[in-house]
Amino acid sequence: MPELRKDPVIGRWVIIATERSKRPDDFVSLDEKPLKTKLCPFCPGNEDKTPPEIMAYRKPGTLPDQPGWSLRVVSNKFPALRIEGKLNRQGQGMFDKMNGIGAHEVIIETPDHERTLADLEQKQIEDILWAYRDRILDLKKDPRFKYVLIFKNQGRAAGASLIHSHSQLIATPIVPKRVMEELAGASEYYEYKERCVFCDIVAQELRDRIRIIGENEDFVAIAPFASRFPFEMWIIPKIHEAHFEEAHKHEYSQLAAIMKEILGRLKKTLKGPPYNYIVHTAPFKDDYSQEYHWHIEIMPKLTQVAGFEWGTGFYINPMPPEQAVKYLLEEPGSSGQEA
Amino acid sequence: MPELRKDPVIGRWVIIATERSKRPDDFVSLDEKPLKTKLCPFCPGNEDKTPPEIMAYRKPGTLPDQPGWSLRVVSNKFPALRIEGKLNRQGQGMFDKMNGIGAHEVIIETPDHERTLADLEQKQIEDILWAYRDRILDLKKDPRFKYVLIFKNQGRAAGASLIHSHSQLIATPIVPKRVMEELAGASEYYEYKERCVFCDIVAQELRDRIRIIGENEDFVAIAPFASRFPFEMWIIPKIHEAHFEEAHKHEYSQLAAIMKEILGRLKKTLKGPPYNYIVHTAPFKDDYSQEYHWHIEIMPKLTQVAGFEWGTGFYINPMPPEQAVKYLLEEPGSSGQEA
Repeated sequence: MPELRKDPVIGRWVIIATERSKRPDDFVSLDEKPLKTKLCPFCPGNEDKTPPEIMAYRKPGTLPDQPGWSLRVVSNKFPALRIEGKLNRQGQGMFDKMNGIGAHEVIIETPDHERTLADLEQKQIEDILWAYRDRILDLKKDPRFKYVLIFKNQGRAAGASLIHSHSQLIATPIVPKRVMEELAGASEYYEYKERCVFCDIVAQELRDRIRIIGENEDFVAIAPFASRFPFEMWIIPKIHEAHFEEAHKHEYSQLAAIMKEILGRLKKTLKGPPYNYIVHTAPFKDDYSQEYHWHIEIMPKLTQVAGFEWGTGFYINPMPPEQAVKYLLEEPGSSGQEA
Repeated sequence: MPELRKDPVIGRWVIIATERSKRPDDFVSLDEKPLKTKLCPFCPGNEDKTPPEIMAYRKPGTLPDQPGWSLRVVSNKFPALRIEGKLNRQGQGMFDKMNGIGAHEVIIETPDHERTLADLEQKQIEDILWAYRDRILDLKKDPRFKYVLIFKNQGRAAGASLIHSHSQLIATPIVPKRVMEELAGASEYYEYKERCVFCDIVAQELRDRIRIIGENEDFVAIAPFASRFPFEMWIIPKIHEAHFEEAHKHEYSQLAAIMKEILGRLKKTLKGPPYNYIVHTAPFKDDYSQEYHWHIEIMPKLTQVAGFEWGTGFYINPMPPEQAVKYLLEEPGSSGQEA
């Protein structure tokens, strides 16, 4: 059973994977670690190489764990947290720990081994978003869980170990520290202004129009004012809503459209860079419906996070977001002339 | 002038390097970026390839910016922050920014191009610590600065762009967010217990003796209970003291000894892994003398930080610290048998 341990100073939780502990020789330098390329467990025909499917979108008449699917959700074969058991919170002297209970699932986004998310049809991206929603609604029923984090690691430098396009979710028994920080920040702003900070960002960005990468009926995609990373992009719904899983049907369709558009621009401008994205949404239970506003943060991995960032929590970004937007919106053939 | 911008939700500051902004093509994939190997600006004889030296330990009779030094401190040639100017805090609609004022210096730890910190004589490591102290005491006099962060990036995967052993310091006009978090955590513990949390950690670790990597008269080196990274190591002074720069003379000598010992063990166990270390010390002005306790955190870079860590702020560590200690303390020839 993995163990959740709490740092007594910072209050940060760490998952210690006590079971699959490794020998020092197993830690190959990150520089040398290749993506696994042999048999792909996410390809059709290899369904038996993953744990059984939790859900799938598949052709009528096809069987679970057989080909015929367009999207599959399975448990992670090497889960960071385990679904079975009780939390069993306990002390160990001054230290705190509990069992590593949680869910860790993989969303296999397409049967196609080669295509990245940006290459998929809009309809397929929409299906991925529906799968996120379906899984959150299902996991919300488990009283042990307080939060579901949905994220994607695209490319080796962003932490992906398999090339086949997929995202992941982790359901956790505590609301993660970063999420709490964001909720606290949004709440503080709300206390002071009696307005949602994300609604205010959307309003100012739509007025300034210097950091907008894309816009449609329901969403705006911006390069945030304080971008941590070159070409960082946030997608924010125009309508105030705290929970991703409570969005309206047409919003998922519009979200798929804007994701395809801006991930396509990112791919074209930077020749398919590694990136992470994270769905930022409110926790299950406490009510943040006034203060919080769900959104997606996309973070390309082009710069190295090193001692300075670790020590300070602030970032050095050599690409001003206003400039990033110009590059992202450049049409091919305009030969890089700047405004 | 670089710009400091504040995220309106999280309160995180970002340094936007507006001057040396890059084109998209300049962002080579991290996977492919080699360490610079041509002419080394940190080697003796190349002193004119760095900005003029701020201080140096050198043979009597030798001139500044000439060979004859054993340690040199220079401004970073590509500083993240600039030393000249005023902060000039201002709003931009709902957003906050200020000029990127600060100091960014490089401590060239040895004239030897090849040796890593672990290979240096204890006396030389002690000199490096004295240089840290001297620079902090000098920068403390500048009323614009509130904090000095001292850190080291060893190896490419840890963010180093030059192989020649060096550390860096950044003086900042604000107390960084991560430092504030640690101070807040330590203060909260102090309020509740009326004891220093780090003193309590030292006491419990010396009693449990399952996470100790090294110990001498003044210091203990531990694998922390909630280690974020495999083989993470903290060096904590046994005597309560908030400021690194106020340590006693014999402490710098003892610190050099324990650093050489445990970095040597790390190098042997993991064949010279990339790592970052950060000197955690109290800010210049506010008084945290009761609550805070300086220390050094060493973080080997063996696992990839990906979407999950970014989204939650908690970490997945496949190496329990108790097991890491066993590996680190194994004598060569004992062939890796476990207890």
